[in-house]
Amino acid sequence: MKTDILIIGGGPAGVVAAVTARRNNPAKEIILVRDKDKSVIPCGIPYIFNRLDSVEKDLMPDAPLEKSKVDLLIDKAESINVQEKEVALEGGKKINYDKLILAVGSEPILVPIKGIEKKGVWQVKKDFDYLEKLRQAALKAKDAVIIGGGFIGVEIAEELSGLEGMNISVIEKLDHCLITTLDREFAEAAEEKLRERRVKIYTGRTVEEIGGGDKAECVKLDNGERIPADLVILSIGSKPNISLAEKAGLEVKERGGIKVDEYMRTSAPDVFAVGDCAETRDFFTGKYVPVMLASTAATEARIAGANLYQLETLRENKGTLGSFATCIGGLALGATGFTESRAKTEGFEVVVGASECPDCHPGSLPGARNVKIKLVFSKKSGALLGAQAMGPKSAGELINLLALAIQQKMTAHDLNTLQIATHPLLTAAPTVYPVITAAQTALESC
Amino acid sequence: MKTDILIIGGGPAGVVAAVTARRNNPAKEIILVRDKDKSVIPCGIPYIFNRLDSVEKDLMPDAPLEKSKVDLLIDKAESINVQEKEVALEGGKKINYDKLILAVGSEPILVPIKGIEKKGVWQVKKDFDYLEKLRQAALKAKDAVIIGGGFIGVEIAEELSGLEGMNISVIEKLDHCLITTLDREFAEAAEEKLRERRVKIYTGRTVEEIGGGDKAECVKLDNGERIPADLVILSIGSKPNISLAEKAGLEVKERGGIKVDEYMRTSAPDVFAVGDCAETRDFFTGKYVPVMLASTAATEARIAGANLYQLETLRENKGTLGSFATCIGGLALGATGFTESRAKTEGFEVVVGASECPDCHPGSLPGARNVKIKLVFSKKSGALLGAQAMGPKSAGELINLLALAIQQKMTAHDLNTLQIATHPLLTAAPTVYPVITAAQTALESC
Repeated sequence: MKTDILIIGGGPAGVVAAVTARRNNPAKEIILVRDKDKSVIPCGIPYIFNRLDSVEKDLMPDAPLEKSKVDLLIDKAESINVQEKEVALEGGKKINYDKLILAVGSEPILVPIKGIEKKGVWQVKKDFDYLEKLRQAALKAKDAVIIGGGFIGVEIAEELSGLEGMNISVIEKLDHCLITTLDREFAEAAEEKLRERRVKIYTGRTVEEIGGGDKAECVKLDNGERIPADLVILSIGSKPNISLAEKAGLEVKERGGIKVDEYMRTSAPDVFAVGDCAETRDFFTGKYVPVMLASTAATEARIAGANLYQLETLRENKGTLGSFATCIGGLALGATGFTESRAKTEGFEVVVGASECPDCHPGSLPGARNVKIKLVFSKKSGALLGAQAMGPKSAGELINLLALAIQQKMTAHDLNTLQIATHPLLTAAPTVYPVITAAQTALESC
Repeated sequence: MKTDILIIGGGPAGVVAAVTARRNNPAKEIILVRDKDKSVIPCGIPYIFNRLDSVEKDLMPDAPLEKSKVDLLIDKAESINVQEKEVALEGGKKINYDKLILAVGSEPILVPIKGIEKKGVWQVKKDFDYLEKLRQAALKAKDAVIIGGGFIGVEIAEELSGLEGMNISVIEKLDHCLITTLDREFAEAAEEKLRERRVKIYTGRTVEEIGGGDKAECVKLDNGERIPADLVILSIGSKPNISLAEKAGLEVKERGGIKVDEYMRTSAPDVFAVGDCAETRDFFTGKYVPVMLASTAATEARIAGANLYQLETLRENKGTLGSFATCIGGLALGATGFTESRAKTEGFEVVVGASECPDCHPGSLPGARNVKIKLVFSKKSGALLGAQAMGPKSAGELINLLALAIQQKMTAHDLNTLQIATHPLLTAAPTVYPVITAAQTALESC
């Protein structure tokens, strides 16, 4: 078998790579190989328990592939011969490619916790059948313990809190949930929302053992505390799937991820890698960062898809901002670029601006809610290094506005005279628009 | 009496000018003169009838002025002597200023319609007592006719539709409501929302006469049709208040507005003008545009407030984008920069991109709504000239993101590799994020 463009992986990165490849190459043949019949939407997984109430509703549609005339093959790639430009599939087929895009994703990290093999202990796998079983187990469970207070853990906890009569606990080894992506004041607001929804949070704690017989019965913490548990969900992070690339002799980074350049090209000719399996570098420092987000994956896939046959300097990967958003108990929280604490750790001297105001005006309108913004600027260059926002749903797009400002290397002066649209029912007042006010407070503290 | 900085006008422009002047000049004395005891929030006026259910709740708080140590004087400026740098007030006081900022706003346009003097015919005045009477009259009315389908007219119609048993009609002389700020497909969506809420729309029609005795009883259209009316609200536009400036010998523009440079300086030394009373120029063409928006006023006020005593090239007025947002029947609509039709009228050859997708992902989540985006690029330079968005509340911030992109002179290529944050409950999917998809469709049609 032979194709022009071969894509391995059917998650967001694979699909966006395929669709973009088609946009840029109307006449080429494109095949996408996916190892599962059904492809789950990764970021929708926390919502299968209640809001979606089904795994079926969390499937990536195949329509975009069909519309882009991409041939879908359900099979698993076994090996790549980069000299022959050939991929061998487990089903026996061999496919010769002109261009190859690896979008093989990531898998959950496992740590050696005693009792981890017991029934009732689950991971967050991007696997339809597995998730369907997990969902059934969760619907019957009384005492759920989530190990890991990152965004997936926290989102699952919040979603389970919508099920009646379940006791829910989150265990996080750091001082706060979400603290690797949010500064303390924002992380604490998320925790407060969880507590309001009856979720118990154990921070600064690690798990010694999952107790019980065949089945999980409790989780024992390092301080001796025992939390009853008939459902344990591990959400302690993911690692890139690199074995296929490694076997093929592609250069792979020490801390994981297939090495790529700014056009998402690997060390082998005509082989690209995008998404969770590819090494991701930081926007400011250029350092390796373990960011695995569908939005980052999609950006990388767009770059690869556009640079397959000719390079376009306009579409090169400038490193990731790791823009991130979540929603806990109706409170939207987002972050882009550096938090204040991360910026300091990386050696930046920073100036911080903050603001809080109602999301509509006058604030006496029914349904008014506060929106809170924090901006982190480099003291030396004045450039925006990072932003955090929380408030109603629109805080999600506010973070995207601020991500754009970082990508454009804007300063507090630029943000201070931003031209914006405001409306009583839609936004904060023009007199106190939070991005502008936060920029002003930063300027004043200079 | 003597002060360092004197501001005339207590609307959004005056207040932001005062607060910004304080931020930049901690030691100066600042006086703000306002001719009314209570200052109404202009953009909140449509909502006094139902959502706020009071004019009292639509007042600008004086707290920001107090916090900024700005002395508030309730009086009316009668004349300015620019040679003596002195303002005479109606109450008899004379105030010498070092720097003067005029923020005297605009007033409703009146056209010679027969019967306009009848009882039951109202304007949209920024006046507490007048609005309280209008509100009382509206609460008793059965048949409301709004003359003028611009955003204020449309917003009042929508708000009145929340009152039980009222017949509401909007008369617009152009082909569609809102058509000067939105392209047809967006304007039609707004009209559809109004019709869903029982508002009758008469487009391409002008008013011949307001019929009745002392009191308005009906509105007669140019085609002979008569619409019963015991409440008639004129919302046909505003004109800048220029008489004070004109009398003082300041240069004033033919089509209205006090002439200002990019630092908001008038033709008289040390006199600035901001907001509705000041001439506004277009971001792209530099031409005079009759944009009177609180958001534009606030931007101008920030520029004036920062450039009083020393010029800061970082804060100069680059012309207005006229960014605008409204919300009709729960549908948020926004526009920034040029519409497609305006761009063509101004002589730009354009490339258009559009997209529509659910505002959360998967689209099967409860409460999913569509968001629709249209982007207008210059064919020659590739730069984004304008954008429109409609959908749920977050479309308001999406428009601000796109306004930022225009201000940064971004192209479809730049938007195509935008790094964004996405979340199932907050935004469109990373694979189809509407700004990116619209940019892609524009690139394809090049």
